[in-house]
Amino acid sequence: MTHSHDTPTIGVFDSGFGGLTVLRALVDRLPRAHYAFIGDTARLPYGSKSRRTIARYAVESAQFLVREQGAEFLVIACNTASALALDAIQDAVPVPVLGVIEPGATAARAASTSNDVLVIATDATIHSHAYATACQKLGMRALEKACPLLVPLVEEGWTTHSVTDQVIRIYLDELNAEATAQGLHPDTLVLGCTHYPLLRPLIERAVPAGMKVIDSAESAADAAVHLIGGTEPGCPIQSESATAETDWVGDHQSPVLPSTQIRCFATDSVEKFERLGSRFLGRPVGQVELVDLGG
Amino acid sequence: MTHSHDTPTIGVFDSGFGGLTVLRALVDRLPRAHYAFIGDTARLPYGSKSRRTIARYAVESAQFLVREQGAEFLVIACNTASALALDAIQDAVPVPVLGVIEPGATAARAASTSNDVLVIATDATIHSHAYATACQKLGMRALEKACPLLVPLVEEGWTTHSVTDQVIRIYLDELNAEATAQGLHPDTLVLGCTHYPLLRPLIERAVPAGMKVIDSAESAADAAVHLIGGTEPGCPIQSESATAETDWVGDHQSPVLPSTQIRCFATDSVEKFERLGSRFLGRPVGQVELVDLGG
Repeated sequence: MTHSHDTPTIGVFDSGFGGLTVLRALVDRLPRAHYAFIGDTARLPYGSKSRRTIARYAVESAQFLVREQGAEFLVIACNTASALALDAIQDAVPVPVLGVIEPGATAARAASTSNDVLVIATDATIHSHAYATACQKLGMRALEKACPLLVPLVEEGWTTHSVTDQVIRIYLDELNAEATAQGLHPDTLVLGCTHYPLLRPLIERAVPAGMKVIDSAESAADAAVHLIGGTEPGCPIQSESATAETDWVGDHQSPVLPSTQIRCFATDSVEKFERLGSRFLGRPVGQVELVDLGG
Repeated sequence: MTHSHDTPTIGVFDSGFGGLTVLRALVDRLPRAHYAFIGDTARLPYGSKSRRTIARYAVESAQFLVREQGAEFLVIACNTASALALDAIQDAVPVPVLGVIEPGATAARAASTSNDVLVIATDATIHSHAYATACQKLGMRALEKACPLLVPLVEEGWTTHSVTDQVIRIYLDELNAEATAQGLHPDTLVLGCTHYPLLRPLIERAVPAGMKVIDSAESAADAAVHLIGGTEPGCPIQSESATAETDWVGDHQSPVLPSTQIRCFATDSVEKFERLGSRFLGRPVGQVELVDLGG
């Protein structure tokens, strides 16, 4: 199922459904494209598995998107797979592949003047030190902190809850105190987990005055637009007159053109995906199709 | 590795390390026994997997405990496996096998006078309705509630934190309101998750006055003592004079005799097991041995 060049198919992969925030950022920017999203929900969490196992799983999903769904570009909307399997995926499929980590670090580099940045993410992402490594390559110092309660709070739907506000402030206070103790002067905070965009309003209220918040989901979507060539004037897949043509749906009113086609696949747990996914995508995810990628 | 009859080996199985609270309750009651614990950490969470897959995994762990570690009794300290795989395990190994659900329901039956009980547990356990079914078989009405934030809060170490206190009160208030709306008069709350014993002090302060709290980890250990025959006077594996001989260690001062032998195994993630396990066991878990049970 390939499409003519003015409606390319973009494949988006995650171990779960958090990567729908990356898909949402892509749809905001490239509403005329076709999308295929797969969440490898049967085999999550990737965080506790070995690099070889993660690479095998991620390659299977990537091949499904390219071979079965005709994806011409892939975005790996999974921090663990981006950290540990990007090379393996790039070797395994004949299309351009983007992760979420380098775009997040690049956006932090553009935002920061002190070149000291903070990163919050899941335990698995922090333990990989993937963001710190990417930031160091760009000449920045990064202080990382695992915030393991934030994903469960988002999945409980408590995205505006006072408990979540307290938890965010506790984590950020600890992180800022540690930065001060290390003599850092951070001016930028990177959200290194695809669930965290749903907490952005609370996080922006909790950071010190003047600190910029970088959402790696949006950074990855920006990088994808650049890769696909959508920044060129007259790019056929970008909406030239989005405000005129859009159909505003969802909590945060993402523009979705009538022509935007999104197919969602999962390897298990379709119920949770369908129940929670619309909060991440900002529009109904519709029916999620179950696929079997084998053991 | 089998032991003489006065020091039987008890095998304890969980998908993770939460079942160490069941092991702790067993050690409290049978400090002279030998113990082998396995956490199938490579393949958790079981909750999102099919009954057939869970049964296959659980049987592999049970066979490891019996064949490799000489276990003469098995306690399935995993709610999901108890709900979905107890029969399969009993068919697969030639030793007595106990789960955690029926003992919890039986203890609730003994504690309740209204015969209306509340159950809190993880999403997966609640969706299985295993506790409700077990309670109904004993003539009780059970109202269940998933509390998905409690496991991450315990694993974050926030077992006495004000945030955790707020979360517990929110969940219990919702559950009690629902019970009232349904015309129930609950007088007993069952903790249907092996992580929850660490929250028992906060939970006991949060329940309405007079409500009894049943810990299914302790109920399972009581049932194991009964099964093994340890309630008989002069039972050789029970400590007749535990208070005189004990060596008090851990947060909650579990009695551990010098002769208590515990070996812990995991299929992955030994680091987290070793880091968090002692909080669950109430004493250092020591070195956790990695075993490969295959795919």
